[in-house]
Amino acid sequence: MSSSILITNTTLFTEPKAPLLHDQWLLCRNNAIHSFGPMTSVLDEAEAVQINGQDKLLMPGLINAHNHCAMTLFRGLADDMELNTWLSDYIFPAEAKHVTPEMVYECSKLAAAEMILSGTTCVADGYFHEEETAQALFDAGMRAVPAQGVIDFPAPGVPDPAKNIAAAEQFLLKWQGREELITPGIFAHSPYTCSPQTLQSAKELAKKYNAPFFIHIAESKQEQQLIMDPQGTSPIRHLASLDLLDRDTILIHCVWLDDEDMEIIKKSGAGVVVCPQSHFKLASGIARTTEMDRAGIPVGLGTDGSASNNSLDLFREMDILAKSQKAKTLEATAMPAHAVLTAATVNNAQILGLPQLGKIAPGYKADLILIDIQQPHLRPFYNKDLLVYSANGADVDTVIINGRIVLQERELLSFDMAKCMEKVRNLAAQI
Amino acid sequence: MSSSILITNTTLFTEPKAPLLHDQWLLCRNNAIHSFGPMTSVLDEAEAVQINGQDKLLMPGLINAHNHCAMTLFRGLADDMELNTWLSDYIFPAEAKHVTPEMVYECSKLAAAEMILSGTTCVADGYFHEEETAQALFDAGMRAVPAQGVIDFPAPGVPDPAKNIAAAEQFLLKWQGREELITPGIFAHSPYTCSPQTLQSAKELAKKYNAPFFIHIAESKQEQQLIMDPQGTSPIRHLASLDLLDRDTILIHCVWLDDEDMEIIKKSGAGVVVCPQSHFKLASGIARTTEMDRAGIPVGLGTDGSASNNSLDLFREMDILAKSQKAKTLEATAMPAHAVLTAATVNNAQILGLPQLGKIAPGYKADLILIDIQQPHLRPFYNKDLLVYSANGADVDTVIINGRIVLQERELLSFDMAKCMEKVRNLAAQI
Repeated sequence: MSSSILITNTTLFTEPKAPLLHDQWLLCRNNAIHSFGPMTSVLDEAEAVQINGQDKLLMPGLINAHNHCAMTLFRGLADDMELNTWLSDYIFPAEAKHVTPEMVYECSKLAAAEMILSGTTCVADGYFHEEETAQALFDAGMRAVPAQGVIDFPAPGVPDPAKNIAAAEQFLLKWQGREELITPGIFAHSPYTCSPQTLQSAKELAKKYNAPFFIHIAESKQEQQLIMDPQGTSPIRHLASLDLLDRDTILIHCVWLDDEDMEIIKKSGAGVVVCPQSHFKLASGIARTTEMDRAGIPVGLGTDGSASNNSLDLFREMDILAKSQKAKTLEATAMPAHAVLTAATVNNAQILGLPQLGKIAPGYKADLILIDIQQPHLRPFYNKDLLVYSANGADVDTVIINGRIVLQERELLSFDMAKCMEKVRNLAAQI
Repeated sequence: MSSSILITNTTLFTEPKAPLLHDQWLLCRNNAIHSFGPMTSVLDEAEAVQINGQDKLLMPGLINAHNHCAMTLFRGLADDMELNTWLSDYIFPAEAKHVTPEMVYECSKLAAAEMILSGTTCVADGYFHEEETAQALFDAGMRAVPAQGVIDFPAPGVPDPAKNIAAAEQFLLKWQGREELITPGIFAHSPYTCSPQTLQSAKELAKKYNAPFFIHIAESKQEQQLIMDPQGTSPIRHLASLDLLDRDTILIHCVWLDDEDMEIIKKSGAGVVVCPQSHFKLASGIARTTEMDRAGIPVGLGTDGSASNNSLDLFREMDILAKSQKAKTLEATAMPAHAVLTAATVNNAQILGLPQLGKIAPGYKADLILIDIQQPHLRPFYNKDLLVYSANGADVDTVIINGRIVLQERELLSFDMAKCMEKVRNLAAQI
């Protein structure tokens, strides 16, 4: 770990709406961005680790606002299936049998390798044995918002659902304030797997610890019929009637919203995270992201777990978000490139309650990625739209998280990836 | 160029519906696949160039059935714009000013680099100065179906539209039978830029030379109103009334088809090529690909030009085709992974009239790609669906076209890519 890093001769992408700055240097000191400027006035920082940013673009690390990291084990196990068949015949049985603390640790670490290699520096996660995910992401050198799953069924690590809130509290007690990289949260699975009482208890717990509160909501057209003991006429109104919506609540999916739902969300200040590839693959539909964005609802972006995507590459996710909104609205101006770049950086930072992320500015965290733009698919490079419409995760050359270089020239420095892949291979052989 | 290549210890993907074969060898002799089998009975071919396929997957090279290669120069020049603004204010003026023989040659070569680096071994193209595209793709070592553009407006290289058919004939005369890698064709731009007389003359010319005949059709909802002198009640019925539909006609786009159009296409034997990313980005919509596929219409896949995509990576295109059909139909079983793999290999080969492509079988052309599957985003690798839902072009390690190794360990061997990128940089600086 170095206390100072100087990147020179690079193109700077400071934030989505700002113009690119060419021939720049940038200095990180400890875990923060200290300063940047044109090469004509470069600092003399002989003690800093030097990185030559020639033919590269330096931008804020991408933030993945929804993942189930450990599900890398189930990637490709069952594709092209109707949601209920997929869940009931494949995913739930596989989870009941194969989700152990060791599996969660190793498979989350595999996800971390994939995310770092594709330019993600921070991830929000929800699963069981979440203390293992928190440890794995920390050991991989990532910033993370791991959230312990709460569900009214027997779950891995919490066989008695009556103890789900207590288990979640244990998780918060273990991780809150422990490591700067880790911000623990609570993930109530959904209104169709959690009773109103469970949802309210989970939200109260989150409030008590000032922790982010996540929930899957309005994912499928059928969800309305599935809600346990509904108190509203839509999934969102159900949550509103339980007083669950505020600025610390993060609504995952939101594919099926009516106008009233959007108004309720906007007034509450809750964040929305869409996962367009997962919505496509599970045939959930296409969210009204363009309208939410235009209405001023902060829209964030996540990949969902590898079992329903199947890629954790946020460049790919940004591309599909931008393009699918044009197909849905039949307006080519819908969700332009800068809006999806905003979703994956500034908006995700705000939604997750980590406002010092998502931009290059003095004082912001040194979570940065260098993109190799000297490649045929990124030529000519007229403007940053190409990051959405042509770049992919494999173009990421170097990744810095909290002032530490975790990837350099595509070599992962923070942990032994081959060893992790071998362990996952052994776990997969048992399925 | 080597007369014999032996790939060992690899996983074989012979065709989309067949199971993967593990621990295999494969031998190419001259430009064809000679044989393959399990490593327990590997051939002793000491004179062959040896490639170790360990931890890799060997599959047929992907075929891109629609591109405008030279448009790499306009990649990212104008994104997120309404189709008419994009065409009239940006693309047409840029083409009028910047499309020269040199530009077409260099920018097509840049496209070739991107395509080879992402696993495409054969491409169908349509543009102006098409003899330059043919030469560039040939020089890059690619297999190609370049088609000379025919349009009723003054065009680069054909300032007098009255000479468009004669110019197209010159192109066929120059390239037909000249190089095994190159199959020349005719590209009538569209029913809204070509009169019925021009369309019929172009098709007659294609018939005379037994050449493939391409046309953009039913791309936008507004196209019906634009058709010059319509003779049918839909764009497809317009073509049918002019007797343009047969097995050698390739219908590009087909986003807006009604049931009668689909019936007409099916009876005619014409092929359909969809370009889902371009349809998304230009807000054209989502084609009824699932229904066409189920109806037995051969559906192929192309990227369209870089200006409206903006990536020529067919892995990305396959992923979006599979996923977007699920979102459109709300059926997760729509366009499963094997169907999109079929579109990009077997179907494209059939549609382009190149039946010895798209499969691994003795006697088929040695157009092959090796994918590095020992990477975190491709682990575990339960089945080949992951090629669609998680792989991307950057996972391609080695590419063989017509028995020649053109990419090895991601190093392009067939031409000087840096020199080409430098030339394109100079062309772009003038825009």
